[in-house]
Amino acid sequence: MDKINQIIAGIKPLDKKATEEAKIRQDSLTKPPGSLGQLETLSIQVAGIKGNPRPRIIHKVIFTLAGDHGVTKEGVSAYPSEVTPQMVYNFLRGGAGINVLAKHIGGRVVVADLGVASALEPHPALKIKKVASGTRNMARGAAMSREEAIRCIEAGIELVEDELPKGMDIMGTGDMGIGNTTPSSAITAAITGADVVGVTGRGTGLDDDGWERKVKMIEKALDINRPDPKDAIDVLSKVGGFEIGGIAGVILAGARYRVPVVMDGFISGAAALIATTLSPQVKPYLIASHQSAERGHRVLLEYLGLKPLLNLDLRLGEGTGAALGIFLVEASLKILDEMATFAEAGISEKI
Amino acid sequence: MDKINQIIAGIKPLDKKATEEAKIRQDSLTKPPGSLGQLETLSIQVAGIKGNPRPRIIHKVIFTLAGDHGVTKEGVSAYPSEVTPQMVYNFLRGGAGINVLAKHIGGRVVVADLGVASALEPHPALKIKKVASGTRNMARGAAMSREEAIRCIEAGIELVEDELPKGMDIMGTGDMGIGNTTPSSAITAAITGADVVGVTGRGTGLDDDGWERKVKMIEKALDINRPDPKDAIDVLSKVGGFEIGGIAGVILAGARYRVPVVMDGFISGAAALIATTLSPQVKPYLIASHQSAERGHRVLLEYLGLKPLLNLDLRLGEGTGAALGIFLVEASLKILDEMATFAEAGISEKI
Repeated sequence: MDKINQIIAGIKPLDKKATEEAKIRQDSLTKPPGSLGQLETLSIQVAGIKGNPRPRIIHKVIFTLAGDHGVTKEGVSAYPSEVTPQMVYNFLRGGAGINVLAKHIGGRVVVADLGVASALEPHPALKIKKVASGTRNMARGAAMSREEAIRCIEAGIELVEDELPKGMDIMGTGDMGIGNTTPSSAITAAITGADVVGVTGRGTGLDDDGWERKVKMIEKALDINRPDPKDAIDVLSKVGGFEIGGIAGVILAGARYRVPVVMDGFISGAAALIATTLSPQVKPYLIASHQSAERGHRVLLEYLGLKPLLNLDLRLGEGTGAALGIFLVEASLKILDEMATFAEAGISEKI
Repeated sequence: MDKINQIIAGIKPLDKKATEEAKIRQDSLTKPPGSLGQLETLSIQVAGIKGNPRPRIIHKVIFTLAGDHGVTKEGVSAYPSEVTPQMVYNFLRGGAGINVLAKHIGGRVVVADLGVASALEPHPALKIKKVASGTRNMARGAAMSREEAIRCIEAGIELVEDELPKGMDIMGTGDMGIGNTTPSSAITAAITGADVVGVTGRGTGLDDDGWERKVKMIEKALDINRPDPKDAIDVLSKVGGFEIGGIAGVILAGARYRVPVVMDGFISGAAALIATTLSPQVKPYLIASHQSAERGHRVLLEYLGLKPLLNLDLRLGEGTGAALGIFLVEASLKILDEMATFAEAGISEKI
């Protein structure tokens, strides 16, 4: 826990001066003040994160973390667990959605095994941070030990620290793990206090029976495990997942190293609940890329006070929404930096 | 009107075979079917528009059309009319929001004067298609003659036809015209039958008094002019604007030449109401880039049956939202073209 505590202790508030300078510049640009809506607020937020009133983005990194889930034994997913390692290989070959979108935005993808159930073949681009071969079935006890929960968060921090020297002006978070909307719903219910029914969706495509089974399983897991909502490590260990803890670590490190954190959808959101419960100072570093089709995502975004940039009914994960979000952040910073001011353009101000 | 009728006669339905092939390919890609939401439907729509199951986008063109409005004499805008030509010069110098965002997506901007009140200095990048020096005050009579309405639509068609030989795989529409949310609200009320109050917003930043004055002025203009909602030329001439008619022409030509039309916000939406009233065949060629902060925009998008891609509270115009929308269309087509299929990746299908 030392590593986590050190990182948390290093998280500072946003830079006020850069925030104010960016705000003044936005209002001086040749457009009615506020007329670029969230693009304006985004650029001001990122200026505050980076302590620079006109920041630029060059290096874009998406962290796609994989893990398996013992609870899939209860039939809570439309796909078998074998798909987790198969998709990891797909990431490494460049054939997945996240590869296409990361390339589209000129970003790189860091693929990591946080707890895939099977042994993955070594690959130069695969980071092995395996805490265990999948979680245990949370419907019958804790998904992982407290030590394992700490270890997966620390692994996420290490992934970021390993990448920092290569350049990282912005980060996106992503996940792969068959069954992982189940722990994400459980985490959301545990931390926000919402009803399980209201935070449980159809994942990769459950039918009505499957959805009811999933709801019952999550209620059972919460009932058996009784996670303490004030203790994020307790919640993660009892009803979480290794990739979710890993993403929480990535988020903490993003805040610590002043890198804007563009969250993907529901699973990244559950990780953000873990991270912000560990340290509320993380919140101003978060950017919600999109509103997922998973119903629990809306609940957790409201709880975190975040307004998503996109609402495209995405529910793929991998960091796909985050990649699109990074493009919008970049657009917002170019507006801030490149547009002419009223004075430069000789344009009349408001009547 | 011959030119317009010719273009309309040339608009064909989307290509069914390409649509179906794109749909089959989307469902074979390594993701749960439907999990990329609107990105999937977008790519299928564009495949149908282009008659190609795996289309690519290289040449991106944004048409930013400018015009002035006689109704500004009634105090319906927070900025003076002089800002229209000042902003046109800003576009030509590359300092405006649309310049920054067009560059960000690798597109080019076509700037045209459809009816700016003052004489603009010639510039190699400025297309002069001036129908008149601003519209007349619609609160006291028709904004333009029927002939002028036809001429501005034809000018929009010509702009597209001039650009086609340089390459145009997708187009965005944009506007500049102080006061032009007033005619856009009037067009929306006239064509959709909605109440003026429900389709009138604050434009570039009116206060409560200004907003009430604007609503009354639009009600008065509709009362005096009695536009026929079934006759788009009548609506455009009585309560429209030259840049709005020009955009309607751009949209018609986009549909005719099978170029996906990415609409910007409220003014482009009003132009789309004119274009679709002239020919309902235009509809499948339209893509709504964003939901504007202007309240009338929601009403007209619902009337057109379009779901916007972005909801960022934008209300700048110029084509800024369209530029971001073009980026998302491009993302959707790369997904369709570049992702691996389940068979290629050796991944297990649904249980």
